[in-house]
Formats: sequence, C-alpha cells, structure tokens
Amino acid sequence: MKIAVLPGDGIGTEIVAEAVKVLKALDLKFELETAPVGGAAYEAAGHPLPDSTLKLAREADAILFGAVGDWKYDKLDRPLRPEQAILGLRKALGLFANFRPAICYEQLTHASSLKPELVAGLDILIIRELTGDIYFGQPRGRRVATDGHFPGAEEAFDTMRYSRPEIERIARVAFEAARKRGKKVTSVDKANVLETFQLWKDVVTEVHKDYQDVQLDHMYVDNAAMQLVKAPKAFDVIVTGNMFGDILSDEASMLTGSIGMLPSASLNDKKQGLYEPSHGSAPDIAGKGVANPLATILSAAMMLRFSLGQAEAADRIEAAVKQVLALGLRTPDIYSEGTTRVGTVQMGDAVVNAL
Amino acid sequence: MKIAVLPGDGIGTEIVAEAVKVLKALDLKFELETAPVGGAAYEAAGHPLPDSTLKLAREADAILFGAVGDWKYDKLDRPLRPEQAILGLRKALGLFANFRPAICYEQLTHASSLKPELVAGLDILIIRELTGDIYFGQPRGRRVATDGHFPGAEEAFDTMRYSRPEIERIARVAFEAARKRGKKVTSVDKANVLETFQLWKDVVTEVHKDYQDVQLDHMYVDNAAMQLVKAPKAFDVIVTGNMFGDILSDEASMLTGSIGMLPSASLNDKKQGLYEPSHGSAPDIAGKGVANPLATILSAAMMLRFSLGQAEAADRIEAAVKQVLALGLRTPDIYSEGTTRVGTVQMGDAVVNAL
Ligand SMILES: CC(C)[C@H](C(=O)O)[C@@H](O)C(=O)O
Ligand SMILES: CC(C)[C@H](C(=O)O)[C@@H](O)C(=O)O
Repeated sequence: MKIAVLPGDGIGTEIVAEAVKVLKALDLKFELETAPVGGAAYEAAGHPLPDSTLKLAREADAILFGAVGDWKYDKLDRPLRPEQAILGLRKALGLFANFRPAICYEQLTHASSLKPELVAGLDILIIRELTGDIYFGQPRGRRVATDGHFPGAEEAFDTMRYSRPEIERIARVAFEAARKRGKKVTSVDKANVLETFQLWKDVVTEVHKDYQDVQLDHMYVDNAAMQLVKAPKAFDVIVTGNMFGDILSDEASMLTGSIGMLPSASLNDKKQGLYEPSHGSAPDIAGKGVANPLATILSAAMMLRFSLGQAEAADRIEAAVKQVLALGLRTPDIYSEGTTRVGTVQMGDAVVNAL
Repeated sequence: MKIAVLPGDGIGTEIVAEAVKVLKALDLKFELETAPVGGAAYEAAGHPLPDSTLKLAREADAILFGAVGDWKYDKLDRPLRPEQAILGLRKALGLFANFRPAICYEQLTHASSLKPELVAGLDILIIRELTGDIYFGQPRGRRVATDGHFPGAEEAFDTMRYSRPEIERIARVAFEAARKRGKKVTSVDKANVLETFQLWKDVVTEVHKDYQDVQLDHMYVDNAAMQLVKAPKAFDVIVTGNMFGDILSDEASMLTGSIGMLPSASLNDKKQGLYEPSHGSAPDIAGKGVANPLATILSAAMMLRFSLGQAEAADRIEAAVKQVLALGLRTPDIYSEGTTRVGTVQMGDAVVNAL
C-alpha cells in the first residue's frame, strides 16, 4: 500500500506530520512517500503541482494532503497559484466524489455559532461532485461582449456544464452512502434558473428509481443555504454540484463550530482517493505548533477505510480521537474553560497513546 | 406617483393588502393599480408575466410585489412557471441593483438559530447584482458533449458572464451605500477559479480608487458562507454577483431568525424599483390569515425612500413597525412566550394605528 504524503503550505506540514505519526503507530505496512505541493512546490520547483508530485500521486493508492495557499502567492499568475495544485490533482486523477461530513462532536457542541439544541448530535454528509461544473467547463476567458447589456465592452465568462453520466455516477455515490446511514438524500439544484441543474434534477430523479429504499428530496440552493442554518439536523446526505457544494459544504462545516475536526475524502471510480482536512492552510498560525491535527488524523482514518481496505484501523483511529476529546485535551481552536490546552504535537501524541 | 401593485401567489395577496393599507394611511397621493403576476397570472391569462402586467410595471414609478410560486405549477414548462415573472421583470426593467438588508431586531434576537451575542444588533446590507451572471448568460441549453469526461453523452450547460460596466455600476452602488453606513464593503467572488470573478475582483478594486474613504475587502464565496455563520457582525455591506448573491442573501436573512421581517429593493439606473419581502409565497400557510405582513410593509417603506422621494414617510413606517414590535404584537412566525399573537390583518391594522 503506497501513500503519497503531500503536506503543502501553512500549517500543512505540522498537521500532516501528526497524521503520519498516527499511521505509523498502527501495525500495518505502508510505503509513505512525501512530495511538495502548492506554494512549497512552487518555491522548490517553480510549479504548484510538479510532474514528480503528480506522478507520485498517480501511482499511490491514496494521497494524504495537508493544505495549500498563502497570501504571499496572491500576486502570482493563476496557473502558478497554490490552489491550482488541488484542482490539478482532482482533474488528473478523476476524483469526482467529494465526501464532506459535518459532524458536531458531543464535547464541542458549545463551540458552534448555533444554539446547542440545533446542532447537538448533528451528522450530515455532503457529497459534492468535484470534477465537473463551472470549475472545469470550457470555453472560459475574456472577450468583447457582442450582446447583453453592454455590447462592445470587455467581458469575462465561464461555462457551467454537466453531462448525464457525470450526474448519474455522483447520484449513485450519494444513494449508496445514504443507504448506510439515514436513508435520505437531498439533491440541491437551481433547476428554476439553470439548464445544467434542470438536467441534474432529472437525472437524480431517474437514478433514484434504483434506490427506492432511500428518500429523495429536491431543494434549491438558496433554500438549502437557509435550511442549513434553520434546521441542519433535518439533513442526512446532501448531494450537489461542484460550485454549490463548495459553498454549502463550507457553510455546513462552520455550523459545527469545530472545522478543525472535520476530514474529507475525494475519490475516483477506482477508489483511489485524496484525503485532506476541511479547513485550509491557516498561514496566520503556521509554525506556531498550535494547529489542530485532528481533521487530518481523521482524514487518514477515512483513507484507511475508503482506499486501503483497513476499516478496522480506521475505527481504531476514530475511537482514539473520541477518547482524547473525552480526556479533555483541546487545541486552541476548540479550547473552552475546564479543558486542557495542548499543542499540535501533544495532540498527535495523545492520539497515538489512545490507540 | 404611480405604483404597480403585483400581489402574486400564496400569501402574496394577504401581505400586499396590508402594505397597501399602510400606504393609504399616509397623507400622500398615489395612484395604485393592481395586476396579476406569477401563478395567478398564468391562471388568469396563460402567462406568469402577461403583457398588460409588464406594461403597467414599466409605466409605474415603483412596483410593490408580493411573492410568486406554488408547488402546483412545478410541472409546467419552465417559461410558464411563476418565477419567470420575477426574472422577466428584472430583465425588462433593468433592475440590476438588489438591496437585501439582514437586520436583527432587538426584540427578535432570540428567534435566531445563532447565539444571541452573535446576532444582537446585526445590520448587514447585501447588494446583489440582479440582471447579469449565469442567470441570463447565453448560450445555454442541452447538447451532445464533444469533450469533457463523457464525449457523446447528453449534457446541459449555462454561461456565466459579467462585463466591465456591469461590475462597475454595481460596485458604485455598493460603495455609495457603504458611505452612508459602516464604510466597509466586502466584495465576494471566486476569483481563484472563475474568469468571470477575476474580472469582478479587478474591476471592484479599480472602482474603489474613487471611494478611498470606504474600506474594501475581498472574500471567496465559500469563505463568505462560513464567515456569515461565524461572525456575521463583522460585515457591513456585501457586494456580489447574481448567483452568489442569491445564496448568501438567503443565508444571511435566515441568520436573523426573522425572515418575515426583511424587505428588499431592486433598482434600475432611473431609480425605478421593485419592492418585495425577502421571504417567499409560503403556499402552506396561504389564506389562513397568519402570514407576517411586516416585510412587505417595510418594503413599501423602502419604496417610498428609494423610488418615490418620500424619505420622511418611509421613516414613519419604520418607526411604526418598531413600535408595534415594542407593543409585543407578533405573527406566529416571530411569536414567543410573553408576547401577543396576532394575525396578518391585525398586524397591518396595528401599524396603521402606530402611524
Ligand atoms: C482552493 C479552491 C480552488 C477549492 C475549491 O473551490 O474547490 C477549495 O475551496 C475547496 O473547497 O477545496
Ligand atoms: C425565484 C428565483 C428565480 C429567484 C432567484 O433565484 O433570483 C429567488 O430565489 C430570489 O432570490 O429572488
């Protein structure tokens, strides 16, 4: 089993180091190989996703990813910016199915912006399509407008698109996932305005015929953004496109109040996957040893379960994380009175001990 | 001064009737003319926006709009569905500037999903561009894919686009508005992925040179969806495109916990405007006399201020609404223990009395 380890920028190095420590503490044989990505790779090799890093990622069974990005790369041309690495990996490996759980841990309920009764026990799974939509649609660019409100003016444009099989396969992923949990899928679209999402709605409805044991609801994206705030626990699995999923999955993560705890997985049809925390590179706290490594450690657990066939080891890690929380250990992002404040390394060590 | 009154569907008729009652109680001369729109117009005239309604809207100084939509029209072809009326009016009248305040009324703070300290005193203004973006961009439709993941498959597509002058004019609206309030604009984009929003960011930055007394921040849309949950009071004016604005303005409304209180305005460059509550047609409670008319009454106040040059009358209505809340009167959507539950008509009457 080969794991590509791509720590990236900001707190990426620190949090990935802890996840690697946890993986090594298991009695399993992995080959771990590290490569630069994002801004770190741009500095080392002139490109956020160097060929050697991409090659390693392709050959690996799974990728453990930290985070990319830093203000200092804002002035670079778009193709050289850190986030192109993650877009490039998604596209090159065909990682179309993004799993973003939004879970509210019992001990951290108070950290949410929402009233405790609205989030206690929250457990939503957002499934975001990750290789289509307006993220990758062609044509895109700048040109002189020939129609619209200001013909003759400079305009910029992008293309939103989804094909039937792209929608079918992500819908199946969502229905399969729902079968293993609350048996309810909410498909989020904007079929009242967009042709792309009318097709989305039509295809999801068709695929649903094969999953009659799962309840399917359709919801407009603006309404979904509201219902997540109003009654998040009413959701089980949400499935949506790349752009809406970007927005709603971040909104949902933040509702839990502890985005430092939330892992994610991005899978292709061969179950090869990229695993990364839901939070970003947090350059403001990088190098200070205070970042929360738990989202990355839980991402490693998802990796064991989804890509490496080691569900038992995944369970062990998840149990260890719960135990560490029960012991009252907290990095600053989830600290509250009466608990014990620890740093990144101590938190990683605690998880290893709990294993 | 001519006002087109378009009540629409669901609770539209009931809430607009109360706003009209309030307008008539002012010592001002209006010509009020009512016309059907949405599903009601489809049933009366076979089209959600009949020519006669559009003509009335064009000739009026302002439009007082209720709400459109009902499940029963879901099976109609897209061009005949109720929401086409609102899209058609925006386009025909060039209503490019949508003002969506998200205000948390002191007495209603507890109704928010968020902890009181996060929303007490909340006062955000979302300015959404309303006639461009992927809502109206051409081409759009269905076709056979020639490239992408599944060449040969059926696909649907839409075009996102913004021209420089479209961005310029909405940016100016935002900076002007910010000058009259907290002097801070957050421009929300997705410049890290979309060509359209790279131009957006560039143009907003340029326009900002004329408004150096206003602070400008840029934020990615996914981050904005998070920050609204985490620390909504950190925002003053948010300016964004049509699609992102649709999502974020609804999210922000729901944060207040009392969407039944929130008005909106959609203006063109001649200050002609359409005024409607931020909430929808709520077919489930239509005809029961329980809908909250205050958002519509406050929309009428915005109409007086923005389109009819009657700022003083607008102030009077807003003061009357505050007084009614202080008296403890509440429709069911904002009811809490210790207050007095009233229906739609009683609430309208109370505002008239308070004038
Ligand atoms: C960095 C950015 C391109 C990326 C996205 O928009 O997909 C990020 O926001 C994410 O959600 O992983
Ligand atoms: C009904 C729909 C077309 C509309 C929109 O998406 O603009 C609505 O959601 C709104 O925000 O006014």
